[in-house]
Amino acid sequence: MKDYEDFPPIVIKRGKGIYLYDENGKQYIDAVSSWWVNLFGHANERISSALADQAFQLEHAIFANFTHEPAIFLAEKLAEITPDGLNKVFFADNGSSAIEVALKMSFQYHMQKNRPKKKRFLALTDAYHGETLGALSVGGVDLYNEVFQPLLLDTIRAQGPDCFRCPFNEEPGSCNTPCITYVEEQLKRHHEEITAIIIEPLIQAAAGMKMYPSAYLRRLKELCVQYDIHLIADEVAVGFGRTGTMFACEQAGITPDFLCLSKGLTGGYLPLSVVLTTDEVYEAFYDDYGTMKAFLHSHSYTGNALACRVALEVLQIFADEHVIEQNREKSNFMKEYAASVFQHQPYIGEYRQTGMVGAIELVINKETKEPFPSEERVGYQIYKLALEKGLLLRPLGNILYFMPPYVITKEEIKTMIDLANEAIQQWKQGGSSRVYLINSKSGGSEVE
Amino acid sequence: MKDYEDFPPIVIKRGKGIYLYDENGKQYIDAVSSWWVNLFGHANERISSALADQAFQLEHAIFANFTHEPAIFLAEKLAEITPDGLNKVFFADNGSSAIEVALKMSFQYHMQKNRPKKKRFLALTDAYHGETLGALSVGGVDLYNEVFQPLLLDTIRAQGPDCFRCPFNEEPGSCNTPCITYVEEQLKRHHEEITAIIIEPLIQAAAGMKMYPSAYLRRLKELCVQYDIHLIADEVAVGFGRTGTMFACEQAGITPDFLCLSKGLTGGYLPLSVVLTTDEVYEAFYDDYGTMKAFLHSHSYTGNALACRVALEVLQIFADEHVIEQNREKSNFMKEYAASVFQHQPYIGEYRQTGMVGAIELVINKETKEPFPSEERVGYQIYKLALEKGLLLRPLGNILYFMPPYVITKEEIKTMIDLANEAIQQWKQGGSSRVYLINSKSGGSEVE
Repeated sequence: MKDYEDFPPIVIKRGKGIYLYDENGKQYIDAVSSWWVNLFGHANERISSALADQAFQLEHAIFANFTHEPAIFLAEKLAEITPDGLNKVFFADNGSSAIEVALKMSFQYHMQKNRPKKKRFLALTDAYHGETLGALSVGGVDLYNEVFQPLLLDTIRAQGPDCFRCPFNEEPGSCNTPCITYVEEQLKRHHEEITAIIIEPLIQAAAGMKMYPSAYLRRLKELCVQYDIHLIADEVAVGFGRTGTMFACEQAGITPDFLCLSKGLTGGYLPLSVVLTTDEVYEAFYDDYGTMKAFLHSHSYTGNALACRVALEVLQIFADEHVIEQNREKSNFMKEYAASVFQHQPYIGEYRQTGMVGAIELVINKETKEPFPSEERVGYQIYKLALEKGLLLRPLGNILYFMPPYVITKEEIKTMIDLANEAIQQWKQGGSSRVYLINSKSGGSEVE
Repeated sequence: MKDYEDFPPIVIKRGKGIYLYDENGKQYIDAVSSWWVNLFGHANERISSALADQAFQLEHAIFANFTHEPAIFLAEKLAEITPDGLNKVFFADNGSSAIEVALKMSFQYHMQKNRPKKKRFLALTDAYHGETLGALSVGGVDLYNEVFQPLLLDTIRAQGPDCFRCPFNEEPGSCNTPCITYVEEQLKRHHEEITAIIIEPLIQAAAGMKMYPSAYLRRLKELCVQYDIHLIADEVAVGFGRTGTMFACEQAGITPDFLCLSKGLTGGYLPLSVVLTTDEVYEAFYDDYGTMKAFLHSHSYTGNALACRVALEVLQIFADEHVIEQNREKSNFMKEYAASVFQHQPYIGEYRQTGMVGAIELVINKETKEPFPSEERVGYQIYKLALEKGLLLRPLGNILYFMPPYVITKEEIKTMIDLANEAIQQWKQGGSSRVYLINSKSGGSEVE
C-alpha cells in the first residue's frame, strides 16, 4: 500500500479485447490476461450476452438437491474434454477452494480405505497452489508462506524441476528428467504417510513461469501408481489452452486422480472452479447416508448459474473458433519474434515459452545466471516503465512474462513484445542497471 | 449422492422473486434464500440490469495496482454503513476465504507486534465458519470437521451459548449471560497464546439457527479488550439485515476488529466477500516494501468488477426501499403468525426468531427437550414432504427454518408457514413419528 504514495493505483474504466482503458482514456495492453484469467478479451460480446441472458432467467439457486442446466451441461462438457477417466465434477468458487477440495477428498478417500497413516501431502519446492491455509500449506514460495508457517500443515517437500538452472546440466526436452529422483527419494522414505502429490503441470507459474518437459509428468504419474498415491494436477493457471493444449496433462498423456480448474474456466469473467476426479474416487464416497462417507465441502455459491453459463459460452467459443489450433500459429510467431528480440540481450538470461506463455528471466550475468537481488525489484521497475508505454506486464520477481488473451493478433503480439523491449532498454539506461555494473560480483561483463 | 437414487435432484429452469421453477413448471417458495444468499428475489430486474450493463463495460481487471469504480464505491459504502472504526476493506471471493483472510491477518498482526506466542484461535462449540482447512479449523460442527481433524489447527474451544437448552436455566433476553464464563475461563488459561476469538454474532446458523442475546457479544468484546485479543465477527450469514439490523454487531453496539461479509453482499447473485478492519490493524502492515510487512492473500478474481457492481446495486436497493424498516413489520408478522402456528404443537420444542430468521426445533419430548436421533433424518423427511407442496425448506438436522428473501409479502409469509405446518402434520401422521411414540424414553406423552 505504501508504494501507492508514489505510484497510485490506476483506475480502469472499461475494457475491450486485449485492452484496458483508464479514467483518462489511456489504453493498456493486458499482456497478463489480468492475472491469467482472460481468454477472449475484455467485455467480450458473446460472453457478456450469455451472462446478461442468464441474469434474467436464473442467477443462482441452492445447489443441494437442486441443479440447473448450465451446471449439468458444464459438468458433462468438462468430463468430455478433460483427460479420459475424469468423469466426476465437484464445483467450488475459486482456485484455492478447488485445491482445498482435492486435498480434503484425497485425504478422506484414504481414511475410508483404512489407511490412517496417510495424513501428509507431497509438494514441490517453488509450488504455488493458492493462499487459504490448506492451499498455502502445499505451496513453496516463501513470499506467501513464511510468516504463516506455524499455521500450515507439515508438507513433505521435494525439489522441483529447474530447467533454467538445471542441477544436472541437462537440456530440457532432450533430458531423461533426472530431477524426478528428488521426488522418488521422498516417496521411498515417506510413501506410507503420503496421501497425494500435488503439482502445477508443465509450468510452475507463480514461481516465475518455471517451465519443464512433459516427460517429468509421465514419470511422476508412474511413481504415483507405483506407490498408490494420488496425483493432484493443479491446472488452475495452465488449463484452458495456456500451454498449447486444452489441458497441460494431455501433453504427458496422463490422467491425474484430481484435476483442479479455475481462472480461464469463465474466460476471466467470474470466480468459479471445479475439481474433476475418477469413478474410483467417487465410489469410495458412494454409500448410504448413515455411513457418513459423503464428502462435505460447501460454498454458498457452489454451482452458481451465472458463472456456469459463462463457462459454457467459453467452451463453445473454443469449439466454434478452433481456438487451440488458431493459437498454435500465434504461439509460434510469439516464440520466434520474442526470441529474436530478447535472446541475445545482456541481463536476459533466457526467453522461454510453452504454448501461449512466454517468459523473460532477468539476470545480472548471463553465464553464471546470477539473479538480481529481490530487494532491487527489477521486475517492478520495468513494470512501471512499461505501464507508461501502455503495456500491462506484471512481473514475478526478476521474471517478466507474456500471457495474453487469445484474441490477440500477430500485429498486437509484435507491439506487446516491442513495448516490453522498450521498457527493458529504458531500464538498462536508467539508474538500476548501473548499480549492477558496479555491485555485481561478475563485474561489468554484460556491457556490450 | 446415493439419496438421489430415490429422490433425484430437482432441475431449476428459472427464478422470479421468492420463487424457483423447475423444468416441469412446478413452483417452489425459496424459504431459505438459496442458502441464505438471496435478498431481493431471483432474477431481480434492477440487479440483473446492473450486471448486464457492467458486463459490456468492464467484466474484470487485475486488482494489483489497478482498481475500478465499482470496487472503490463499494469499499467506501461498506466502510460507511458498517460499525464505526471499520475503515479498511479487503476483497476476496467467498465466505471461507474471508475467514481465512481474517485469521491470517490477525495472526500476522500479532507476529509483527512481536508476540510470537500468539498462534492459536479461540472459537465456540457448534461454530461454523466455512470449509477450507483454516475456516474448518475454527468450526465446531462434527459433521464437517470430524474426518479432517488430523489436517486442522489446534483451536481452543469454549462452550457457546445455548439458549434453548440453557445450562444455567436462564431466559434469553433477561439473563446476565453467565455462559460467557466458558469463554472467560479459556481466556484466563490461554490468553497469551490466543490471536483472535471468532464468532457468528447473534445466530450460530449452521449449528441449527442457535440464537443468543446481544449482551453476550458485548461481554465478549469487553473480554477481547481486556486480554488484548482480536474479535473476528463472521457476519457471512447474519449480515445485510438478516437479524433485523444491517449488521448483527450493531445490536450489541460493538465494533469487531475484523468483520467478514459475503452471501447477501451480492444479493444472492455472485460469490464475493470482504473483510473490514480497523486503521490500527491496517497501520501494522503499512511500511516500505522491503520490510515485507505487507499482507499477502490473493485470489485471481479479487475485486471482480461484475460482483462489485452487483453489490453496489444491492446496497442502493437497501437505501432506496428502506429495506431494514420494511423488514421490521414483516418480521413481526412472521414471528406472531409462526408462534401461533407452532408454539403449542407436540414435537416442536420451540419456535424462535431473530429479525428475518425463524427456526423450529423438533424434539421427541417438549419437556425434556430430548432431540430426535440424527440418523432418523427427521428434518430431511419433512423437507421432502414440503418440496411436494412447493416449499423449499432446507433443514439443519432437527431444525427447520425460514430465512426468506426480503421481497416476500405478508401473504407469502403466511403461505410459507402454512405449507411448512402441513408438511409437519403429514410427517406426524406418517411412519417416522409413530416410531418415536414407542421408542422415546419419555413414552407417548406428546400425543394430544
